[in-house]
Amino acid sequence: MAGRVLIADATPTNRIVLRVRLLAACYDISQAASAADVMARVAKGGIDVIILASDLPDRPVTALCAALRRSGSAGEPRILVLQNRADPAARLALLGSGADDVMVKPVDDAVLLARMRNLMRARDSERELRLRDGTDRALGLAEAAAPFERPAEIAVLANAGETRLEALCAPLRARPLYRLSNRDPRDVLRDENPSSEVYVVSETVLGGQALSLLAELRARPASRHAGILYIARADQSQGAAAALDLGASDILMEPVDPREFALRLDKQIASERIRQRLRASVRAGLKAALTDPLTGLYNRRYALPHIERMAERAAREDRPFAVMIADLDRFKRINDRHGHQEGDRVLARAAERLSGSLRSADLIARLGGEEFLIAMPDTDAQRAMQAARRLCAAVRTSPDETVPVTISLGVAMGDGSSTVEGILEQSDAALYAAKKGGRNRAMLYDDRMVLSRIASPVRQAQLPLFAAGGT
Amino acid sequence: MAGRVLIADATPTNRIVLRVRLLAACYDISQAASAADVMARVAKGGIDVIILASDLPDRPVTALCAALRRSGSAGEPRILVLQNRADPAARLALLGSGADDVMVKPVDDAVLLARMRNLMRARDSERELRLRDGTDRALGLAEAAAPFERPAEIAVLANAGETRLEALCAPLRARPLYRLSNRDPRDVLRDENPSSEVYVVSETVLGGQALSLLAELRARPASRHAGILYIARADQSQGAAAALDLGASDILMEPVDPREFALRLDKQIASERIRQRLRASVRAGLKAALTDPLTGLYNRRYALPHIERMAERAAREDRPFAVMIADLDRFKRINDRHGHQEGDRVLARAAERLSGSLRSADLIARLGGEEFLIAMPDTDAQRAMQAARRLCAAVRTSPDETVPVTISLGVAMGDGSSTVEGILEQSDAALYAAKKGGRNRAMLYDDRMVLSRIASPVRQAQLPLFAAGGT
Repeated sequence: MAGRVLIADATPTNRIVLRVRLLAACYDISQAASAADVMARVAKGGIDVIILASDLPDRPVTALCAALRRSGSAGEPRILVLQNRADPAARLALLGSGADDVMVKPVDDAVLLARMRNLMRARDSERELRLRDGTDRALGLAEAAAPFERPAEIAVLANAGETRLEALCAPLRARPLYRLSNRDPRDVLRDENPSSEVYVVSETVLGGQALSLLAELRARPASRHAGILYIARADQSQGAAAALDLGASDILMEPVDPREFALRLDKQIASERIRQRLRASVRAGLKAALTDPLTGLYNRRYALPHIERMAERAAREDRPFAVMIADLDRFKRINDRHGHQEGDRVLARAAERLSGSLRSADLIARLGGEEFLIAMPDTDAQRAMQAARRLCAAVRTSPDETVPVTISLGVAMGDGSSTVEGILEQSDAALYAAKKGGRNRAMLYDDRMVLSRIASPVRQAQLPLFAAGGT
Repeated sequence: MAGRVLIADATPTNRIVLRVRLLAACYDISQAASAADVMARVAKGGIDVIILASDLPDRPVTALCAALRRSGSAGEPRILVLQNRADPAARLALLGSGADDVMVKPVDDAVLLARMRNLMRARDSERELRLRDGTDRALGLAEAAAPFERPAEIAVLANAGETRLEALCAPLRARPLYRLSNRDPRDVLRDENPSSEVYVVSETVLGGQALSLLAELRARPASRHAGILYIARADQSQGAAAALDLGASDILMEPVDPREFALRLDKQIASERIRQRLRASVRAGLKAALTDPLTGLYNRRYALPHIERMAERAAREDRPFAVMIADLDRFKRINDRHGHQEGDRVLARAAERLSGSLRSADLIARLGGEEFLIAMPDTDAQRAMQAARRLCAAVRTSPDETVPVTISLGVAMGDGSSTVEGILEQSDAALYAAKKGGRNRAMLYDDRMVLSRIASPVRQAQLPLFAAGGT
């Protein structure tokens, strides 16, 4: 839980002073006296933030920053450089080589600690979306960040007619991959579908409103994960500290060098895009858990709870619903005669034709093998049988095709009192009757059909639903 | 993006005054004059927070709160009640019926707005973990919250010997499902594996440290999602507002009624457990995307990038690695003669025996059908063939069993220059040779074997890896 901080400074006193100042935050602190020490310690892993003196005996600090960026995984460890005196050129070089921030001594304690928290948080929010190494890679989470492939949307919060930020913004408006626009803060908060990836909040421009706007942005679903670049007034170091703790992604102090502004924006855009990608991959991963890769249909893990819900709604609304099991006829023979590849193609085509013949409210899932499940809400027996015959005709190929395909369907009607198990058993019995009656047809379950507990193998080999609980 | 707030008060002036006070936050505000209005508006959906007057003409507000809780999904909408004067008994009743907070007029603007942000954020952080209705259910995310099934771990931050919180804590220590302990704040920050689910931070006890401790807790990975209950001093409404914006989950103002303390803690524990469950389910969903449900082994989506990584490491360390494809012999015959259920059992058993015979650094995955993939890092040809023969023997049943099972393996050696595709083709050619040579054996690839692009059907039907990018 304690963050791991590496203090790198050739002068022991400097290291001790800094260590004492960080005491309140209870970090686990280690020390380095040279760039070589830093590289060695970082190679062992576990360092979250490095605080670097602006010069080290054995290597320029810009080169060290660049080496650290090349060696570590994206953005780890975070790097904070402390300059003895303001040196704007060195500052830009450091930020450009991968330092996350450069501060000039003396640094206010509150700002230093708030910045440390900000760096720790930034690291964790990404790390949390990632899983362990292998899983990452398999889910496509570990790919290197792409360069900007589409314009970056940046909202500069400013009331109409505001010009004080023009010196910073004008050069960026000319860049092709930047869409930088001044936006009225109230419009931003009211915007239902904001597309901004980074917000710029300036204390000079917004005055007392700045911090509360920042807090509002962080409380809104659409902007809570966006990058927020906060420009603090030089005489307001408490404002900078507060902004960081309220969730600013990065801060700049007035007066701001336009090149630094551009650098920091680039960085915010890049991180925001990584987070977007991670969130998309998590969603894709979850979706993959519920779909069948061959046909793209839902799988049984999705389908069974769906039918349960359909039964609940049927009970509430007192409307019937229909469930069908469809099974390709003599599929094994297709596999044997024409090979698995052709078999897969037949399955995919059948899936496509079945789904193309259903309403959007209907569900179709692949239960496994050559078996499909279809569920139709708000449907009576007559309409269900019409649909089943339509499905049967949709899949059927002309008999003189090289690979003739037909399908059989078993249909069962559900109402508020149906259980998922019961209705699947009934559809299965009806499917058995359809197969027995000569295949290539649909049968509706009736009470004379025999319910067999030894249903088809696919339905037996139940996928376990996820167990919830535990952490 | 604008939060939707419903103001419910029978007196129009009160509604207007409140509406004006909320202006700065640009919420989308609607109004209700009675409990019936509230229920009707909420039924239409979309309301995030309701601000209720403490009395309405047509229904006691406690009853309204309870009705809202029964009708909505967990914790939505959030409810804030404004009392005209302090009424501790009514306050407890309201909190007990589902109000999220009760404030006594006049309410400080900063505290009101900060509390609104807190309620909006709490709602979103849960909503974000959920997916759309059906997916939720299928992944087990939508289950009702279980009552405390294990003791709740609560850390009260206080220096040793602190007794001022005893009046609040003592009654709870007696409860069987509470584990409430005073903890030194520094120990908590240093704790590597904290088990606390809720932290109690009191301004009276911690003084000026309280807010920065709160900020530190929110910056640490282990506590950033935990519940934090902040006890503010009555004379410090700015402290309360700051605490909420720094991420306190809930606040209490001194003097605190022990019953209210218990109520709020219960609520924090319940929400923390819901969040734990949601996070666990998301992880389970991601895991499911990478495993084969029948055998529990990894699937090809996991396996292929894993081999790629193995090849990269082999290149770095200049060490060979081995890849094998194992295929159950005459599996179709087993299915035909003994049924799919028996076939599935044979597959699961073979999977178990194969994994039981491998080292922990080795990978085994099910490619699909009756095909398995095995990858062994840091392994030369001799040791690979030993392992392959061991695997062959592990799966083989005695020939007089009812369902005799054997397996054939094709082995290929990889080095730094191998491509995943190439090495799979080679293992496949070796597997073909093993089958041709009489099955129930392992063969090592050599150059005289014919590489066929028409590899086994399973390897052809490539699962697409997830595409990253997009949102």
